[in-house]
Amino acid sequence: METTNEGNAGIISTQYFTFAQPPDEMKLENGETLGPVTLAYETYGNLNKERSNAILIVHALSGDAHVAGINRENGDPGWWNTMVGPGKAFDTGKYFVVCSNVIGGCRGSTGPSSINPKTGRNYGLNFPLITIGDMVNAQKRLIDYLGIKKLLTVAGGSMGGMQVLQWMVSYPEMIRSAMPIAITLKHSPQQIAFNEVGRQAIIADPNWKQGDYYGGPPPVTGLALARMVGHITYMSDQSMEEKFGRRFRSERVKNKFAQDFEVEGYLQNRGTHFVKRFDANSYLYVTKAMDFFDASNGKPLAETFKGLKAKVMVIAFKSDWLYPAYQSREIVRACKMAGLEVTYCEVDSTYGHDAFLLETEELTHLIGYFLEKLFRGEVTAEYEI
Amino acid sequence: METTNEGNAGIISTQYFTFAQPPDEMKLENGETLGPVTLAYETYGNLNKERSNAILIVHALSGDAHVAGINRENGDPGWWNTMVGPGKAFDTGKYFVVCSNVIGGCRGSTGPSSINPKTGRNYGLNFPLITIGDMVNAQKRLIDYLGIKKLLTVAGGSMGGMQVLQWMVSYPEMIRSAMPIAITLKHSPQQIAFNEVGRQAIIADPNWKQGDYYGGPPPVTGLALARMVGHITYMSDQSMEEKFGRRFRSERVKNKFAQDFEVEGYLQNRGTHFVKRFDANSYLYVTKAMDFFDASNGKPLAETFKGLKAKVMVIAFKSDWLYPAYQSREIVRACKMAGLEVTYCEVDSTYGHDAFLLETEELTHLIGYFLEKLFRGEVTAEYEI
Repeated sequence: METTNEGNAGIISTQYFTFAQPPDEMKLENGETLGPVTLAYETYGNLNKERSNAILIVHALSGDAHVAGINRENGDPGWWNTMVGPGKAFDTGKYFVVCSNVIGGCRGSTGPSSINPKTGRNYGLNFPLITIGDMVNAQKRLIDYLGIKKLLTVAGGSMGGMQVLQWMVSYPEMIRSAMPIAITLKHSPQQIAFNEVGRQAIIADPNWKQGDYYGGPPPVTGLALARMVGHITYMSDQSMEEKFGRRFRSERVKNKFAQDFEVEGYLQNRGTHFVKRFDANSYLYVTKAMDFFDASNGKPLAETFKGLKAKVMVIAFKSDWLYPAYQSREIVRACKMAGLEVTYCEVDSTYGHDAFLLETEELTHLIGYFLEKLFRGEVTAEYEI
Repeated sequence: METTNEGNAGIISTQYFTFAQPPDEMKLENGETLGPVTLAYETYGNLNKERSNAILIVHALSGDAHVAGINRENGDPGWWNTMVGPGKAFDTGKYFVVCSNVIGGCRGSTGPSSINPKTGRNYGLNFPLITIGDMVNAQKRLIDYLGIKKLLTVAGGSMGGMQVLQWMVSYPEMIRSAMPIAITLKHSPQQIAFNEVGRQAIIADPNWKQGDYYGGPPPVTGLALARMVGHITYMSDQSMEEKFGRRFRSERVKNKFAQDFEVEGYLQNRGTHFVKRFDANSYLYVTKAMDFFDASNGKPLAETFKGLKAKVMVIAFKSDWLYPAYQSREIVRACKMAGLEVTYCEVDSTYGHDAFLLETEELTHLIGYFLEKLFRGEVTAEYEI
């Protein structure tokens, strides 16, 4: 495997797949329907003639379909550009990589900021409550549409990991392997609590107006606060210490309760930046979907992945306190109890939860070799003989 | 030591000590002045004729002078009633216990909600920025006023621990021992970050009005949000799991983004309760004082407690992730480097930061024996021979 050849996935345009046109609307897990549904997605590399080299990458809370390369419209690099491209871990010279956005979001897919065809206005809170299951059901439609019968792997970190677990549960026959990274089978009360603080910050913003703010000023103050809380949980105590220490800001304003410390300025900047690209209602819907997610869905742990044959690689990071390693070990237990072949990697990183985006070298080795071995095995067993 | 005799400290009235009447105002660490200054305090037990049995207890961010017994006005038990009383760890049958409120607060002492004598209106943001050092300088005036030359001990957890460390630095000759509990020599960027989120939530509340909200509706939504964030950090992942799990609320409202989970309802209740007894501006001032606190004040660790002779007991709790045990071990290191006699106790609790209020049995033994031994030694060495 050449990890040194870090080629770029090129100039990429986001694509859009629309389905569930009324009256054939998509049935949601809560019984309501949604349609039409658009999913934003991007693809990289080529599907081989056996259609055996397709990989689905799914993203975290604030991510989008633009996982790699340079966006044609705005020049932005992909959120996992270090990991996806020619010669990289998800080698687009070998694999056909698909990255799908989620419904409920605001990055090109149908969500609360979309126009409700029944009213001609933005959905707002008329958008139905969606689940991780719904997100994955929509992605399954996309994979069908792309002519893929079986995915070589489905991989994702954080909320992406929830989608991976959901694929393992909902479509076991469609995946040859799975990589849930830095995630849990279900949120702990602490994880729910952090999300709830973010939601309450949005709801408390007078501009939120029960979600009906489109056309007026959006609740950016509340959303920025939610993002600030998020960023604290994404870093480790140690990585914050290394990045900021107790240094004061250089552009320090001598006002009472201005941001005195660098870490305060950083959080404010992250918040201010985030509100330019994310919708507050989507933040509410998507975090609620995360909180309600339960891979076992009430079943015993041993039955969670019953019937699945995929090879699984579970990855956790030692300093990740938002999704602590013990939660990943619980995923491993569930896999073992279902008789699965499962590899567990606990990466010794200091980056906290952000490690899944930052520990490129370690992840490149883990994921690159896993895929190469799997893909080689696959070709040998079913196609070459 | 009788730990079974858990007598109550009785019916207690808060007392008020006012000093620094203009023009003899109190000089603050930032060079500004403040006066008159009132400190709310309570006392329990009797000062012996040698004046050798006085203990000062100092409180956390949201605490007050009412540490023990039943408040005469409202019937509330003290915040450390399990620890302070006849036969308890801080045995009011033996010791004269003083608990002092802090300046900058809102529980009877001078703070931003007090009337500014220069304007006849509430200070609001005209209140000067105060420090932990200023809080302790005011307490020193109270201790002088009570006729106490030397304290048997000064003890406190969380922000109380900061005041203890400040006493060790500012008035080493006035303390025979010190007990900093669940605290740090200085805030890490993570600790600053959590406080900053709380402050920004208050500042974002339209009712805050640059701190000039007295007489109008106070910024209760922002303050409640700040408290919610606080409560997450006060509990451990495990204690939240044990207390709430993923249970739904019984009185669940079927609204989108209502509180579905018990943990969400708990946080909301804590927030709603808190705003009835705490002033948002005090939250800003006091958390800023905590963030700026640095016991070493720029000096090397070895010189932090130079010249101090007190015996020190440092207590930390294993599951406390807000003030992790490594920070307490740093206090121990600083003590050792200054040649102090220091005891370090890392209590194996699952309660998180709240453990300093909840681990009564363990703390009773640790503190009770420490004080008894110290007090007996004291009497033998200086008074009986």
